[in-house]
Amino acid sequence: MDTEQNAQQQPAPDVVEAIRSRSAWARAACGELARAGRARKDETLLALASALRANGPAILAANAEDVERGKATGTTAALLDRLILDDDRLEGLAVALEDLAALPDPVGVVVRGRSLPNSVRMQQVRVPLGVVGAVYEARPNVTVDIAGIALKSGNAVILRGGSAAERTNTVLVQVLREAVGAQGFDPNLIQGIDDLGRPGVAALMEAHGSVDVLIPRGGRELIQRVVRESRVPVIETGEGNVHLYIDASAPVEMAADIALNAKTHRTSVCNAAETLLLHQDAEAAGREVLRALTRAGVLLHVDAGARAWLPDAADGGPAARTAVDATEEDWGREYLDMEMAVKTVGSLDEAMEHIRRWSTGHTEAIVTNDLANADRFVTEIDAAAVIVNASTRFTDGGELGLGSEVGISTQKMHARGPMGLEELTTTKWILRGDGQIRR
Amino acid sequence: MDTEQNAQQQPAPDVVEAIRSRSAWARAACGELARAGRARKDETLLALASALRANGPAILAANAEDVERGKATGTTAALLDRLILDDDRLEGLAVALEDLAALPDPVGVVVRGRSLPNSVRMQQVRVPLGVVGAVYEARPNVTVDIAGIALKSGNAVILRGGSAAERTNTVLVQVLREAVGAQGFDPNLIQGIDDLGRPGVAALMEAHGSVDVLIPRGGRELIQRVVRESRVPVIETGEGNVHLYIDASAPVEMAADIALNAKTHRTSVCNAAETLLLHQDAEAAGREVLRALTRAGVLLHVDAGARAWLPDAADGGPAARTAVDATEEDWGREYLDMEMAVKTVGSLDEAMEHIRRWSTGHTEAIVTNDLANADRFVTEIDAAAVIVNASTRFTDGGELGLGSEVGISTQKMHARGPMGLEELTTTKWILRGDGQIRR
Repeated sequence: MDTEQNAQQQPAPDVVEAIRSRSAWARAACGELARAGRARKDETLLALASALRANGPAILAANAEDVERGKATGTTAALLDRLILDDDRLEGLAVALEDLAALPDPVGVVVRGRSLPNSVRMQQVRVPLGVVGAVYEARPNVTVDIAGIALKSGNAVILRGGSAAERTNTVLVQVLREAVGAQGFDPNLIQGIDDLGRPGVAALMEAHGSVDVLIPRGGRELIQRVVRESRVPVIETGEGNVHLYIDASAPVEMAADIALNAKTHRTSVCNAAETLLLHQDAEAAGREVLRALTRAGVLLHVDAGARAWLPDAADGGPAARTAVDATEEDWGREYLDMEMAVKTVGSLDEAMEHIRRWSTGHTEAIVTNDLANADRFVTEIDAAAVIVNASTRFTDGGELGLGSEVGISTQKMHARGPMGLEELTTTKWILRGDGQIRR
Repeated sequence: MDTEQNAQQQPAPDVVEAIRSRSAWARAACGELARAGRARKDETLLALASALRANGPAILAANAEDVERGKATGTTAALLDRLILDDDRLEGLAVALEDLAALPDPVGVVVRGRSLPNSVRMQQVRVPLGVVGAVYEARPNVTVDIAGIALKSGNAVILRGGSAAERTNTVLVQVLREAVGAQGFDPNLIQGIDDLGRPGVAALMEAHGSVDVLIPRGGRELIQRVVRESRVPVIETGEGNVHLYIDASAPVEMAADIALNAKTHRTSVCNAAETLLLHQDAEAAGREVLRALTRAGVLLHVDAGARAWLPDAADGGPAARTAVDATEEDWGREYLDMEMAVKTVGSLDEAMEHIRRWSTGHTEAIVTNDLANADRFVTEIDAAAVIVNASTRFTDGGELGLGSEVGISTQKMHARGPMGLEELTTTKWILRGDGQIRR
């Protein structure tokens, strides 16, 4: 993450004023978008996709500058990987915008509607939130994803992409603004604030009443800072200390397949499993799971019970790494790497107690053939997603059919789990009468 | 409001510890409630109603002490009126609990559900928020209302009722806790923190992670303080600078009926109209509206255009008061009294511009017979409730069929408008598979 974003400082008056102006322009730009129907919004999304393709060389050139600078300043390989755009990734962003155009419009959906006893016709209807702020890190794809989702859901966005991707984001925002303008909308629907630097983020967090919601996307420090300091309502995204519990009745092969997929399909993401809980009576499944993980090259942090089930060195295969003893600290770690904590438990209750203690409320999963245990796990575990007999990797907007996502909310207010179009809306109560008064 | 609640001060460690303990007890108490089905919750609500009736004398005696103390310390008549309980009001609270029992359970409602392409069965299901904090002022009815709504929606509550009603609330909380315990639930589902005084509120606002949501109900200062200082997510309730716009095509009698009802049916509430906007071409309706309001004894703060339409003194009737000139300040005032600001406008656009400038986002209404204008008003005005040709007094949970309400949210996140049972829930994604992994 950008360590620069951690510094606390009071924004200067001109920065506060810049945020005030831009959020006012954003608010004004929303009006026209609110009146536009779905057709104009979808046409604009297609135009944004075309603009990305047409301006590919300029975008990639700007990105090359950022990458060059990143290499020169010793940016980690993982960060560079998130920063880099190429033809394929750019095409992926364009396709994602086209996919958004094909999704239903969340605005105007009638959530509830009925006639009241006095014949007033009541409807609760989805409407845009208004002005959405996003603060993220070195991932230019987020610029395009959030701009597209915001446009489709009728919102204006104010984007802060972090200094590592500043050149790329500047060009992307410019391309998107021009395309929006060419479609007859106010370009201020999409605005960047990277030019304001760190103080811009501080001023954005103070803009209660001007900005309707702030979405931080990135590492723990960035998110915690925004949650702690923002006066604008925040949707917290992110951290996933994801547990996979193998119950006593777990089918052996299913347990191994799911554990391997949950841990190794993609390690750097928040829905990857980080801790494995093995029921002490699930020895066959436990041994098979540990063999599969070891063969795949996962470094296991094991308790004494799990150590007894580790495969023999010869059985581990060429990629095998030596397991290490787990410490208390391992239960709280989000490795985001080819590492996993493993603990044996005596009962479902002990597993759930461990999860309650260490869960970040993202995704928790059980593999079991016991119906009562599955039901208890689903009811009693408090997380955005609870999964029975499937990989934790399914906590994902695309997988759930929500289209591209703004992030995965780990809070309970407003949105929980993958946030798509609907999560960038609020509702309005509309009452239509013919003179009714209250008696 | 309690001015004592405005003082900023760091809570002492023992107060922070008390809030930590009580919120942990509340969290633990939720588990049993989450597992209980609707039947047990409804039986408990009926038992709470019976307990209120059975303990009427003790509750009223405690209330008499608070009222006595309030009189001795010069509490205003309006505050005393909110504080006082009598047999009728107590019976009303018991009936409200019984009504809650009859409402559908929001927990377990399937918001979305389908089979994914890989045959994973996906459901998004309503679940309780968890631990709900409420900070309010001198209104003992809120203690019972919020405790009942929280119980039905599966939540635990931590209540801070303010020092003016401390005796009443102490007895009410005790009665409710005993009744909850007698039904086999953990009494810590309902806890008061009045014993912790002002520092208790400060510690509650810091309890991010322990308390899931904080609902302030009361005057502007209390609400603004909580919005400003709380690290726990807040649902902002309240202020209503409600506008009623009489369009050029407004039917004369309908305009007068609605204006009179919106202003005078009950003046102390947030959905009472505060500013009247009159189209300059609506002279007949404008004159009729001003005559009705004047006759009812409403003090009008008028601009020059409205002054020309005021009734003759003889026409005003015995209750008539002399209108005064409106100042800029009047456009922002929530009178909550028999007073109203009146402004003439040249167009629907001018009316909407005034509303955009001064609205608190609560309720805005239009009286019109022009379909295009009605549609524009509904689409372009950004408020929790937008009303066409009916009284503003209908922005109310009971009137909309939601049952008793926790408050009326004027924010856009999570809940907007009257908050009932559903608004005290979040959702959980539940995925059930038979071994699916991500490819």
